[in-house]
Amino acid sequence: MDTKELREITSRDVDFPKWYTDVCKKAELIDYSSVKGCMIIRPLGYALWENIQKELDKKFKETGHENVYMPMFIPESLLQKEKDHVEGFAPEVAWVTHGGQEELPERLCVRPTSETLFCEHYANIIKSYRDLPKKYNQWCSVVRWEKTTRPFLRSREFLWQEGHTVHATKEEAMEETKRMLNIYAEFCEDILAIPVVKGEKTPKEKFAGAENTYTIEALMYDGVALQSATSHYFGDNFARAFNMKFMDKDNQEKYMYQTSWGMTTRIIGAMIMTHSDDHGLVLPPNIAPTKVVIVPIGKNNDEVLAKAYDIAKELKLRGVSVTIDNSEKSPGFRFAENEMKGIPVRIEIGPKDLENNLCVLCRRDTLEKVRVELPDVEDEVIKLLADIQTSMYVRAKTRRDSMTKSVLTLDEMKASIEEQNGFIKAHWCGSLECELKVKEVAGVTSRCIPFDEDNKDGKCCVCGKPAEHLVYWGKQY
Amino acid sequence: MDTKELREITSRDVDFPKWYTDVCKKAELIDYSSVKGCMIIRPLGYALWENIQKELDKKFKETGHENVYMPMFIPESLLQKEKDHVEGFAPEVAWVTHGGQEELPERLCVRPTSETLFCEHYANIIKSYRDLPKKYNQWCSVVRWEKTTRPFLRSREFLWQEGHTVHATKEEAMEETKRMLNIYAEFCEDILAIPVVKGEKTPKEKFAGAENTYTIEALMYDGVALQSATSHYFGDNFARAFNMKFMDKDNQEKYMYQTSWGMTTRIIGAMIMTHSDDHGLVLPPNIAPTKVVIVPIGKNNDEVLAKAYDIAKELKLRGVSVTIDNSEKSPGFRFAENEMKGIPVRIEIGPKDLENNLCVLCRRDTLEKVRVELPDVEDEVIKLLADIQTSMYVRAKTRRDSMTKSVLTLDEMKASIEEQNGFIKAHWCGSLECELKVKEVAGVTSRCIPFDEDNKDGKCCVCGKPAEHLVYWGKQY
Repeated sequence: MDTKELREITSRDVDFPKWYTDVCKKAELIDYSSVKGCMIIRPLGYALWENIQKELDKKFKETGHENVYMPMFIPESLLQKEKDHVEGFAPEVAWVTHGGQEELPERLCVRPTSETLFCEHYANIIKSYRDLPKKYNQWCSVVRWEKTTRPFLRSREFLWQEGHTVHATKEEAMEETKRMLNIYAEFCEDILAIPVVKGEKTPKEKFAGAENTYTIEALMYDGVALQSATSHYFGDNFARAFNMKFMDKDNQEKYMYQTSWGMTTRIIGAMIMTHSDDHGLVLPPNIAPTKVVIVPIGKNNDEVLAKAYDIAKELKLRGVSVTIDNSEKSPGFRFAENEMKGIPVRIEIGPKDLENNLCVLCRRDTLEKVRVELPDVEDEVIKLLADIQTSMYVRAKTRRDSMTKSVLTLDEMKASIEEQNGFIKAHWCGSLECELKVKEVAGVTSRCIPFDEDNKDGKCCVCGKPAEHLVYWGKQY
Repeated sequence: MDTKELREITSRDVDFPKWYTDVCKKAELIDYSSVKGCMIIRPLGYALWENIQKELDKKFKETGHENVYMPMFIPESLLQKEKDHVEGFAPEVAWVTHGGQEELPERLCVRPTSETLFCEHYANIIKSYRDLPKKYNQWCSVVRWEKTTRPFLRSREFLWQEGHTVHATKEEAMEETKRMLNIYAEFCEDILAIPVVKGEKTPKEKFAGAENTYTIEALMYDGVALQSATSHYFGDNFARAFNMKFMDKDNQEKYMYQTSWGMTTRIIGAMIMTHSDDHGLVLPPNIAPTKVVIVPIGKNNDEVLAKAYDIAKELKLRGVSVTIDNSEKSPGFRFAENEMKGIPVRIEIGPKDLENNLCVLCRRDTLEKVRVELPDVEDEVIKLLADIQTSMYVRAKTRRDSMTKSVLTLDEMKASIEEQNGFIKAHWCGSLECELKVKEVAGVTSRCIPFDEDNKDGKCCVCGKPAEHLVYWGKQY
């Protein structure tokens, strides 16, 4: 592969979906196999997921959650116990019908989500208020039999974490539901530099079996929204279906209150579609597996290479992951290759630089270069990484805000979305009818009712009746 | 559950299999669900697996391996590409035949192991010697449709890691195979305190599709062997079946040489059956999620509790994980409960101890108690943890050695195994016939040909012909 071929990715302004797939493939995040609709997550893609896991898992444990592992199979009869839940999931599951040579007495689905197994387990192990709360999480893969698939965004199998908790009271369960949504939001903003809108799903869009679904919604470069994580409050819906009772302090038998919440490998897709460009991947320093690449220039220059090792050693001591790319390829090729892989900072150093006690820092987000004194290089790199992280967030937020419009009527909404994709803020009366009408006329769906409804008073953009909510609408991934 | 019920587990000397299941259940490592043959791994069980992952993953990365994720499904036609491999695995896989409402055009098995997917991927991404070696690993769950199942030891679904590497030369692949076996052996001995015998499987016992299989074999408390990890050298068997070729330096197209190696949640079972006792789990300090529990004694004693927090704080600063068990239950109950969960060191402290500036340390492995001065407690705990780790290994090794016998004839072998289970060292001519005869007469199978064949010369214990190898024989889990 020469530099030209490497650089030859579709421009994101010409064909965004094709650009996205090109980046996923050429940055070596994923590959395909003979397993239709599933993807191979390659080392760089998986290293991103490992870093995501590390950050989230730390937050989960700090807030008192424990990890467990449930079976990947769910008997059909168990899946059917909660009515809305089975209606939501049964049409898109994979069914195991044979074990070895024998047909199974009851078919098993490969888990699309594990509420039913957690419910059965909780009913089994919890007797008294002393056993509550139980706050479990699991990291695993799940399967949903999608017709059309795209890397990270929609795949028949994907990786995720699913938290499932049970509590003695409504209030505590609701508090947990919102706490976890906030953890997701902070993670997206602080680590992935993705600005999100926190809010609640309309009844039509909520999770199968939930009483309330909370969501964080991000806006991609092309103005299409991406649901980045959800947190569900179940009330006692599942508890009633699965007979999950406990003896409370007052000696009364009561149903438990329950939550679930999840984030998936989809978020890697969100990161790509928020930050990356026509040179390939752009990774926020806080999640990048390798933060710095050093490219020594000039052949057979032992002094340059020795300096590169010195810098790498010092950066590692300061906790910065760094690699040296000293391959035989031309500097131009190596620049392009490391840009494609999204490494936040590149240090270029050649014989002449060394003579002048200088080197060049190139930041991946803007591709700007600055010359710095060699004795300052580690300090400058650390400052630059912090600056890139902040700049990426600010840039994404500015773009998101510029693509967020407020409208009063359905006609305005239609005109706005025809002009440019983005978030549309418009009032809504709360009826399913008007929600469906919006979809029919403007081609967008409700993304969420934001927590900070800055202007709740208004009239429904469809029927003109007094509004119940301000809603974010948009196209969605 | 009162102390009596907690303590009421079957004695390991009375009914070892029942004792084992009791410990798994009462220490809350696992639970059952309506998914037959699969288990739920509960927080303590999963925390053990997380620690195992952390230790192994560090060693894998230090030796240049990268993690990836392959699809969990394998199309039937792909599984069938390597003849021995499909014969070995097809009889025990779970088959997915339907996705959503539709019957699949080709059925998919849920991976029992992922050689075939790695082969397809490597054939796809590797063109030249410059792309070699590729050293990938994945952490995932796999499925094998077992008829009889037991917690951790044999479950229809289990967790594991599978390493798959490809190399330009035989020598390099063989070196990798042995390197990984050594990593497993070190891990078992240094971290889990399980002594192992390193060796090679006989052709009859090797992995389906491998040229050589290396193994580490441990001996459980009941004298039954447990294969604790394996590392396989494939030669170019799979490379030929999957057309995995690369252009070498000499411009010749060549087949790659390949390895695979794995360790599973079985090893948790091995740890239990090596160290635990009639009071429950005994965990080696190097793997225990909680190394120390502090049990404050006496009601409403704020000073005792304050001291407990001080000690906990200081231990945490020194990197020792610690918990305080201040529940309302009686001291005796709390002692029993924490013993059941295998926490290596218990600190008991009451008002009188505090007056005398003392506390009691109880080590879980021997249940011995010592009184120590309060100002020395952290130092003493750290010393004690190190001592427990070493003692556990020495105790396990002494027992293993005392249960290892050398015999010259099949009759002696039969007599020995009837007297006591254990490893039996006996010479073997190398023929399948004699190997089968050993199984038929003495009821044991070959565990391995040890790397350090201390006395290679001898006569086959079955046919009396000159021996090719000294072999470890034994019953097996």
